Amino acid sequence: MTARSVLPPNRMGAAYMNFLSRIIEDPRTERFIMVLIVINAVTLGLETSQPIMEKYGTVLHVLDQAILAVFVIELLGRMVLQRAAFFRDGWNIFDFIVIGISLAPATEAFTVLRALRVLRLLRLITIVPSLRRVVGGLISALPGMGSIVLLIGLIYYVCAVMAVNLFGDDFPQLFGTLPASLFTLFTIMTLEGWVDGVVKPIMEKFPYAWLFFIPFIIGTTFTILNLFIGIIVNAMQGEVEKEHAAAREAEREILHDETEPLMAELKSLRAEVAALRGDVSARLPGVPAVTQKP
Amino acid sequence: MTARSVLPPNRMGAAYMNFLSRIIEDPRTERFIMVLIVINAVTLGLETSQPIMEKYGTVLHVLDQAILAVFVIELLGRMVLQRAAFFRDGWNIFDFIVIGISLAPATEAFTVLRALRVLRLLRLITIVPSLRRVVGGLISALPGMGSIVLLIGLIYYVCAVMAVNLFGDDFPQLFGTLPASLFTLFTIMTLEGWVDGVVKPIMEKFPYAWLFFIPFIIGTTFTILNLFIGIIVNAMQGEVEKEHAAAREAEREILHDETEPLMAELKSLRAEVAALRGDVSARLPGVPAVTQKP
Amino acid sequence: MTARSVLPPNRMGAAYMNFLSRIIEDPRTERFIMVLIVINAVTLGLETSQPIMEKYGTVLHVLDQAILAVFVIELLGRMVLQRAAFFRDGWNIFDFIVIGISLAPATEAFTVLRALRVLRLLRLITIVPSLRRVVGGLISALPGMGSIVLLIGLIYYVCAVMAVNLFGDDFPQLFGTLPASLFTLFTIMTLEGWVDGVVKPIMEKFPYAWLFFIPFIIGTTFTILNLFIGIIVNAMQGEVEKEHAAAREAEREILHDETEPLMAELKSLRAEVAALRGDVSARLPGVPAVTQKP
Amino acid sequence: MTARSVLPPNRMGAAYMNFLSRIIEDPRTERFIMVLIVINAVTLGLETSQPIMEKYGTVLHVLDQAILAVFVIELLGRMVLQRAAFFRDGWNIFDFIVIGISLAPATEAFTVLRALRVLRLLRLITIVPSLRRVVGGLISALPGMGSIVLLIGLIYYVCAVMAVNLFGDDFPQLFGTLPASLFTLFTIMTLEGWVDGVVKPIMEKFPYAWLFFIPFIIGTTFTILNLFIGIIVNAMQGEVEKEHAAAREAEREILHDETEPLMAELKSLRAEVAALRGDVSARLPGVPAVTQKP
Repeated sequence: MTARSVLPPNRMGAAYMNFLSRIIEDPRTERFIMVLIVINAVTLGLETSQPIMEKYGTVLHVLDQAILAVFVIELLGRMVLQRAAFFRDGWNIFDFIVIGISLAPATEAFTVLRALRVLRLLRLITIVPSLRRVVGGLISALPGMGSIVLLIGLIYYVCAVMAVNLFGDDFPQLFGTLPASLFTLFTIMTLEGWVDGVVKPIMEKFPYAWLFFIPFIIGTTFTILNLFIGIIVNAMQGEVEKEHAAAREAEREILHDETEPLMAELKSLRAEVAALRGDVSARLPGVPAVTQKP
Repeated sequence: MTARSVLPPNRMGAAYMNFLSRIIEDPRTERFIMVLIVINAVTLGLETSQPIMEKYGTVLHVLDQAILAVFVIELLGRMVLQRAAFFRDGWNIFDFIVIGISLAPATEAFTVLRALRVLRLLRLITIVPSLRRVVGGLISALPGMGSIVLLIGLIYYVCAVMAVNLFGDDFPQLFGTLPASLFTLFTIMTLEGWVDGVVKPIMEKFPYAWLFFIPFIIGTTFTILNLFIGIIVNAMQGEVEKEHAAAREAEREILHDETEPLMAELKSLRAEVAALRGDVSARLPGVPAVTQKP
Repeated sequence: MTARSVLPPNRMGAAYMNFLSRIIEDPRTERFIMVLIVINAVTLGLETSQPIMEKYGTVLHVLDQAILAVFVIELLGRMVLQRAAFFRDGWNIFDFIVIGISLAPATEAFTVLRALRVLRLLRLITIVPSLRRVVGGLISALPGMGSIVLLIGLIYYVCAVMAVNLFGDDFPQLFGTLPASLFTLFTIMTLEGWVDGVVKPIMEKFPYAWLFFIPFIIGTTFTILNLFIGIIVNAMQGEVEKEHAAAREAEREILHDETEPLMAELKSLRAEVAALRGDVSARLPGVPAVTQKP
Repeated sequence: MTARSVLPPNRMGAAYMNFLSRIIEDPRTERFIMVLIVINAVTLGLETSQPIMEKYGTVLHVLDQAILAVFVIELLGRMVLQRAAFFRDGWNIFDFIVIGISLAPATEAFTVLRALRVLRLLRLITIVPSLRRVVGGLISALPGMGSIVLLIGLIYYVCAVMAVNLFGDDFPQLFGTLPASLFTLFTIMTLEGWVDGVVKPIMEKFPYAWLFFIPFIIGTTFTILNLFIGIIVNAMQGEVEKEHAAAREAEREILHDETEPLMAELKSLRAEVAALRGDVSARLPGVPAVTQKP
């Protein structure tokens, strides 16, 4: 389960590779992994309960390790098959990290790493296509938000530095350091406890402190709401464009349906004229009848 | 009022069924039930008041039971008429459950069931068509939300398990068990008391706890807002599509209005050419005038 | 300033009425009233300050009464001019009520009425056309919300009655009576203090109380958000429809521009055929040339 | 660094001006300023930390002053180049104010001015084009909000005056003066602490106080949400209009594609008729062939 075990595939024969690819790409394997994730979700949930752990701790642990082993084998299989291409797909990297964390030594010193093992349940996203699409959609909305997020970040940072300078000496708990100030301003952005927890005590010392906080609240609320308005408008625009492309196609068809009889009428009129010309030529000798190309 | 009373209808004659269907389907019956629901809303409201119950308790109780009896009779009537089809309509099942709860024995042990009797007022939804349409609309929005709700649920569960592992030992009240953790994270999602009630005390012990909570707040807020953006965009898309279908119809008409005179002109031109050909044939003997098909 | 003063106009001559209508309808009168409202806003604001009232109380009071007198005279003027039509306009009724409240006896017993005098500043809405349009827009959005508001109201009432039955005996402060229950559920809808103020103490007694409160929070939030989504979609739909009507008009023009040369070509072709027929008739005697109608 | 230093440019030669414009307008200068702003953001952040200031205070201060000097020189350069035109651009005025504040004497009495020095980081907005566009977009959304903001302001002011009159005497902390009342109503609008902090204590004295506060909460929430709905609809409308203009252009092309073959057919038909007429003229002597104009 260390780096050494990644090496053998290089010596595997083509027949073995073929067999491997058939197993990994089988939709039943996918469904099997999905079921394992759900079972793992239950076991990891049960492991949080003290009384259940006392009774069934060993069973749960063995089950957990067995499922993890399957995940590792499936991941190694995919790595062997896709080689360098493996790390070019963001979802593969996600799976790799999430399973890598689960394999980290679970000593007492790394309680946090042990807690992060549960992240492996997020593999459900990489396996269920509709979840993958939703997360892909959320991520694809991010670049369009770049500028406005940068703006919010800038305002937020400027206000945090300003708050340290203005209120830091008198309210060290709230604004004593830059990190404390950033945290306090974040709580104000969520509007949680901004009155009794922050602004009221400060206004007792600095009666004009509202000149800082109320514009901050209105400004960030307005900017964040505009961020979401932007996302709505973008999403709508995409839909409207798709709709319009479809409409254009439909229109082209309608138009064709209408002009076709006109064209047919014109064509038969032309046949009539050609026939007339034939009549004229036939009855009036002197000029030979010319066959007209359509 | 027990299962036995459902049997007789099977022995009812066709004339009786006819009479029943005329009564049940009469719009006046519907309006009468509607009025009864409103009266029942008032009586159930008044029954919550101790002093009113002491004075008019018996009257209110009798009235309540009488209204319930009418509801039961109407429901039985509909069941007799529609038979098996009755349970194929979701609204009927809703009425059945809601009235069934009201009939449950109201002993002291079932205080909850007694409290649920008030659910029968929700029958107003099944009777007023506009309410039915609104609820239908809300329910029909749910499947489109499936993936994103599943995603929120997954993130929420993973975070809850993680929180038990990280903070469970030190904050048993907030994160001691999985249910407690799920509840606490829900309160954080609503942003109520997340600062002073949860994150501040935890950050005194784990100064980096904000690395867990702030991404959780931003992530779930962002995802839930995207859920609603999705609903808005879906609803808009439906409207836009309907609009476009109407537009296409209008366009077809406009186009027809414009091409019709062209066609008329072409037709009369063709008549002219035909007449010309007639002239030529008449004056130039030798070839007989051919009647041209249109 | 009582009902008697409304009578004289009936005896006023036509010349006087003419003079009155010229004054009332003058745009300068409107601007004058607007300025008076702004001045009145300042005086009513200053009257809330104890120290200012001690110094300038009489001045402010006289000013206030003078402005009110002008408002009354203007309103009476409009009533005389428009007679019965006056009360058919909602805005006039609004002005009438708002000024009527200001004229109510300001005895100690009617502190509330005195406080309501400030409502007269809302006359700014009836005078500034853009404010009138905004308020008109908000009001016109209400009927479309009717069903969903009724639904929210129904759910809210049912839950309030249920909460009294479930928690009323143990938490009389929060859910003891129906009004208390309605108020508490409203505070929960705003998410303010729902954790520490309401649900946590109740869950200590009823551990399953979250089965009532969490669906209530999710349900009402979801329904209220759908209410706003409905308003957005409606507003958008109106815009899209207007856009489409304009688009249809533009399309009709484009189409006309394209078919006109076709028609011109057809017309001249027909002239050509007619000329040809003329040629044939002129040179081939026997049949008279027929003049063809276009 | 005072007004005197602005004068010299008038005496500068054309060659020097040319050199200056080449430097100021060089994209590398822009990027250099951008980098300086980022460095300055870091130094200003570090200056908030007591321990860092004790160790590196002088270095940071010198660096800060050096960066400020570059900003001043760049600004003076742009003023010299653009002269009167400089103050016609809002972004220039913004830069001027923000740097002017940084130059203000940083005595103890002006702690606020010293805190405002950090505003100079907002110059990042004027330099990064995408940030400039976002802020421009936010500002351009403001005029469309004018009426509804005025309406909210009016309701807010009227309610604040009313609250002073109603509750001022009994709750001087919350509603004793107009500013206090305005602040308290703002906290209620954010829904923070409105239950336990404001309405519950007031309702103990005035049981009907909810008749004031609940309509205020519903009314302002509804109006503010309508404000944002208005922004969404406006933004969408702009997008839809752009889309429609593009659609119209596409349609014109489609139409042209369809009518062109008709026109070609018509033209060749006309040629045919002309040829026929030529035939007739050639074979039937007596009338000269007339050349027909197209």
